[in-house]
Amino acid sequence: MTERLVVIGGDAAGMSAASVAKRTAGDAIEVVVIERTHDVSYSACGIPYWISGDVSGADKLVARTAAEHRRNGIDVWLGTEATEIDPAKARVRTRGGDGSGRWLGYDTLLIATGAVPRRPPLPGIDAPGIHGVQTLADGHALMAWLEDERPRRAVVVGAGYIGIEMAEACLQRGLTVTVVDTAPEPMTTLDPALGRLVREAMHKMGITVLSGSSVQEFETGSNGRVRAVRTDNGVLPADLVVLGLGVRPLTDLAAASGLELGKTGGLRTDAAMRLPGHPQVYAAGDCVESWDRVSASWVHVPLGTHANKQGRVAGLNIAGVESTFPGIVRTAVSKVCDLEIARTGLRELDARELGRDVAVATIETTTRAGYFPGAQPMTVRMLADRSNRRLLGAQIVGREGAAIRIDVCALALWTQLSVDDLVMTDLSYAPPFSSVWDPVQVAARAVVSELT
Amino acid sequence: MTERLVVIGGDAAGMSAASVAKRTAGDAIEVVVIERTHDVSYSACGIPYWISGDVSGADKLVARTAAEHRRNGIDVWLGTEATEIDPAKARVRTRGGDGSGRWLGYDTLLIATGAVPRRPPLPGIDAPGIHGVQTLADGHALMAWLEDERPRRAVVVGAGYIGIEMAEACLQRGLTVTVVDTAPEPMTTLDPALGRLVREAMHKMGITVLSGSSVQEFETGSNGRVRAVRTDNGVLPADLVVLGLGVRPLTDLAAASGLELGKTGGLRTDAAMRLPGHPQVYAAGDCVESWDRVSASWVHVPLGTHANKQGRVAGLNIAGVESTFPGIVRTAVSKVCDLEIARTGLRELDARELGRDVAVATIETTTRAGYFPGAQPMTVRMLADRSNRRLLGAQIVGREGAAIRIDVCALALWTQLSVDDLVMTDLSYAPPFSSVWDPVQVAARAVVSELT
Repeated sequence: MTERLVVIGGDAAGMSAASVAKRTAGDAIEVVVIERTHDVSYSACGIPYWISGDVSGADKLVARTAAEHRRNGIDVWLGTEATEIDPAKARVRTRGGDGSGRWLGYDTLLIATGAVPRRPPLPGIDAPGIHGVQTLADGHALMAWLEDERPRRAVVVGAGYIGIEMAEACLQRGLTVTVVDTAPEPMTTLDPALGRLVREAMHKMGITVLSGSSVQEFETGSNGRVRAVRTDNGVLPADLVVLGLGVRPLTDLAAASGLELGKTGGLRTDAAMRLPGHPQVYAAGDCVESWDRVSASWVHVPLGTHANKQGRVAGLNIAGVESTFPGIVRTAVSKVCDLEIARTGLRELDARELGRDVAVATIETTTRAGYFPGAQPMTVRMLADRSNRRLLGAQIVGREGAAIRIDVCALALWTQLSVDDLVMTDLSYAPPFSSVWDPVQVAARAVVSELT
Repeated sequence: MTERLVVIGGDAAGMSAASVAKRTAGDAIEVVVIERTHDVSYSACGIPYWISGDVSGADKLVARTAAEHRRNGIDVWLGTEATEIDPAKARVRTRGGDGSGRWLGYDTLLIATGAVPRRPPLPGIDAPGIHGVQTLADGHALMAWLEDERPRRAVVVGAGYIGIEMAEACLQRGLTVTVVDTAPEPMTTLDPALGRLVREAMHKMGITVLSGSSVQEFETGSNGRVRAVRTDNGVLPADLVVLGLGVRPLTDLAAASGLELGKTGGLRTDAAMRLPGHPQVYAAGDCVESWDRVSASWVHVPLGTHANKQGRVAGLNIAGVESTFPGIVRTAVSKVCDLEIARTGLRELDARELGRDVAVATIETTTRAGYFPGAQPMTVRMLADRSNRRLLGAQIVGREGAAIRIDVCALALWTQLSVDDLVMTDLSYAPPFSSVWDPVQVAARAVVSELT
């Protein structure tokens, strides 16, 4: 007997689940994906690189088209919105592009509605020239603005991942770029000591970073378009504004349908990605909370990696193959021009808030043997818990080849390694690849010194 | 009361131990280092890059000179050989450059005599033009040969790490290069399926690889110099021969002094780097065996990383700070021109010899998101144990940015992670750095498929 899986949301989590479930269960499952936009399975993380010109077009960001999914036996309803979930009757109300509504019954439901960019309710926020970069449609709108209006001065609001990536993209397109942010240093996912390195590097690249400043209004010209961003530290002329203020989980539909949200506003699932109390209902991706293994708390970390893994786990369970999502350690990486930025685990601030007694060290080293051509400077900051000597977190800022080393720290966190053990692990070495003591181990040694 | 530490051998292991012991114990310890050559603390691994021209001179490879060590309070005796160890009387017989001998008493002895290149006892092996690349002196001799004799045709004997690195160096210097090796594929630290990729890439670089061929004689000209290498597959004209046949632990002195060797010919120590039954005698570096955590056996793996770590552990223990060397997982990395090669853990062959029931998968992916400029092809081969689903080993062959990912596999091996867990670990992702499923996780997923 064929069971029906209904998926709300056709990007990373939704389509991963749909694909894995269909591939695993075959004819035993009918899969219907409801997608509000006309795009599925695209790399939202790639949008800044499309804007910058590094990637030649939006089509490059699409991993698989709706037509390809259909050929794999997945029924994709584009331009269709889910307007109501009725868990008691196991059905979803949909509204098509023509406004027509219908109920669609399900045996299993996956909520993969993603997240929406935060838009501060400030005067002028809806003026033409103010852009988000969350969806492919956002990207198209921004590209059209760039081509039609030829803006010269961009103001990026927010100095997190999207903010710095969009600052790079605007710089590459020849615009004058100012980044405004409320925090004292950019990249608040880092400790301020490393955020400062990012700010200084951005200044050298020609990007103005206005830290500790709040936007108060988006000023518009007589044509109604944005012409400046007024902050508590002055007015910044702008003919393009990019919003990079982060996102919130898009769970309004779920909440309105009586499904319970966690404190972060995301849906909270069990390790199988199932909603507690709703054995037929799964959720995955940017609309859910994830379990942070280091702080032992629920967090909202909207990243493509988690969305893909959670989608895979949901898809396997839906198809009858037991699978669990074991949580995250908050690993993330980004870059602004040639400056690489990576982090995992707790910041010093987080650790102190959690009442951990931490040892911290920051070291300077190089990406290759110091004498090898192309050796680039890099800074590693590392934290350990004095009570059990375990790694608590690490942050890296450096040039080409620096950031990828965060993965060793991520795995050390994952496996609860002590910094003493990390010093002695068998990492690769040859002069073109690292110094004989790997940068991560140089940092771990420095933390060990702090501990003793 | 001052105790005396005598160290035999002043490179990575010996000088790490000497420095750590002195820094830790200060005036409580007198440190004497006996070094046969006139060089200390240099990166032997960097010699091929000095020969190639990537590194401008031998001095760049010296991390710290004898004078610098002396300023740190370490007594360095250059050009001095240890000719006898008398453990019963806790003394070492030394012979200076002038031939004068004397006994030197110790409270603690560290044997860090390193390794020597294998030289097959073939006709002509001692002819001028045949070079090893183990010591800085070897490097100087080879550089002089290149500059004085202007050779045009190089034959490299051996297709392991040193062999391929020297093939690159000779190619960069404009020589015609042939690599001769007895094995069916180069880089026998990889499974042959990946060794084949290395051979094919070397051919494309213009390096002739003569696999499955034994050298039978080094033919010399009327001037007594090497002029060809005769193999069982033909005669290769050569005006430079580089030996890259690996090394053996230099433990003759220790053996002659009644100290026991392991099966590999290296000294076997406890985890504190102490010789069993000789509480005053330590050994570290290329002259010792290391414990392989994956195969649970003693192996001889002469690498700078292990030498530095073992030296540090010995130095700490000698200074009264407890420390242990926890073994290795056989991680290694190298490159030939722009082809990166990395490995960790067991090959399929090793696993089968150990009676493990293995699942193996080989996948092709890219170093960055496939759509991102500069994304390079890479191949990952991964093995897991069917009985417990744990990772057993991994190998990577690819272009720039590929090899460093072996470190995640090394840490997964270290912590006995299952391939299922590896699929779900929180590794970093952004389009300029990786695909959304990290290459290591794509491989782990493929192995999981083999397991189920």
